[in-house]
Amino acid sequence: MPIGSEIERLIQLLSKLPGLGPRSARRAALALLKKRDTLLEPLAEAMLGAARAIKPCALCGNLDTTSPCAICADPRRDGHILCVVEDVADLWALERAGVFRGRYHVLGGALSALDGVTPEKLNVQSLADRIAREASGIDEVILAMNATVEGQTTAHYLMDLLTGVKVTRLAHGVPVGGELDYLDEGTLSAAFKARRSL
Amino acid sequence: MPIGSEIERLIQLLSKLPGLGPRSARRAALALLKKRDTLLEPLAEAMLGAARAIKPCALCGNLDTTSPCAICADPRRDGHILCVVEDVADLWALERAGVFRGRYHVLGGALSALDGVTPEKLNVQSLADRIAREASGIDEVILAMNATVEGQTTAHYLMDLLTGVKVTRLAHGVPVGGELDYLDEGTLSAAFKARRSL
Repeated sequence: MPIGSEIERLIQLLSKLPGLGPRSARRAALALLKKRDTLLEPLAEAMLGAARAIKPCALCGNLDTTSPCAICADPRRDGHILCVVEDVADLWALERAGVFRGRYHVLGGALSALDGVTPEKLNVQSLADRIAREASGIDEVILAMNATVEGQTTAHYLMDLLTGVKVTRLAHGVPVGGELDYLDEGTLSAAFKARRSL
Repeated sequence: MPIGSEIERLIQLLSKLPGLGPRSARRAALALLKKRDTLLEPLAEAMLGAARAIKPCALCGNLDTTSPCAICADPRRDGHILCVVEDVADLWALERAGVFRGRYHVLGGALSALDGVTPEKLNVQSLADRIAREASGIDEVILAMNATVEGQTTAHYLMDLLTGVKVTRLAHGVPVGGELDYLDEGTLSAAFKARRSL
């Protein structure tokens, strides 16, 4: 075997990262070993540091060094409007877009009968509790699930669950910059149905 | 800022790995934080373990836990034939193919005037010394450089340098499984020139 077991193990673990296959894991392992001082050791320390410091927010499920997280603790964010997302990555995407100034609730996934993801495995009860709490004062819940079968199933489930509060969802339609020719029938149909007068 | 500085730093370092852009680095960071016990900590330990254990072979430049490396130390490998490669990744590729049972010499890169890579920055002197050593008994040196401008420049340089020993290079031609329609003119021209009678 040309590759020592230490390198083999490093490659095997790197290939478990999303976006890295066996070939790119090999390239990444070599890059790490070539840049020990500037990349390998800082990255290993950043990983262990993050593992120690980062925890889920007890209120919303976001990942941060503090709990409640910086968004939940920020008094400038509007506590009357709650955006429910599947995953922390979705929260990051919305924050990058900078379109939302309320607070979040991270479900930690989407309902999926195939994968055995039931409501009990998601942060659904904490969402219901959070909205039901008398002092919460939440006026609107935006369901920002992915436009996938699982995401929409989750949205429908939450819509039935959350009574007594205004529930909205993101608009479906033509993505900005998108060309009609490349869009699927579902998106085109949704864009037609939701057309708006100018 | 929605992302804590610990996560930000982790993402920034992950995005320095080859094959990971900013988006896949974010996905990788989230995957690491979600699988702390099964992925993050084992990977950090494997990285630090590899940094401690892996060193370049003093003879050939390969990376291994021992120096000389397992290939240089293996008495079943043919010491009379030496395959010169640019990088450890190339050595791994040849070993995966299992076509070569001799020993290697890893240059650590290719000559490049643009990037300021001179012969002094590569393991060229150690190659010349290794071949010149009276006891080396090397009969053939295979130049297995990449078929790039830099690789071929390096091969020409080495061909001039290594006198008194048989020097060969890998064949150029149609890759196995390749379709002529998709091949560049250079490859087709090389394949025509090197055609063989059946």
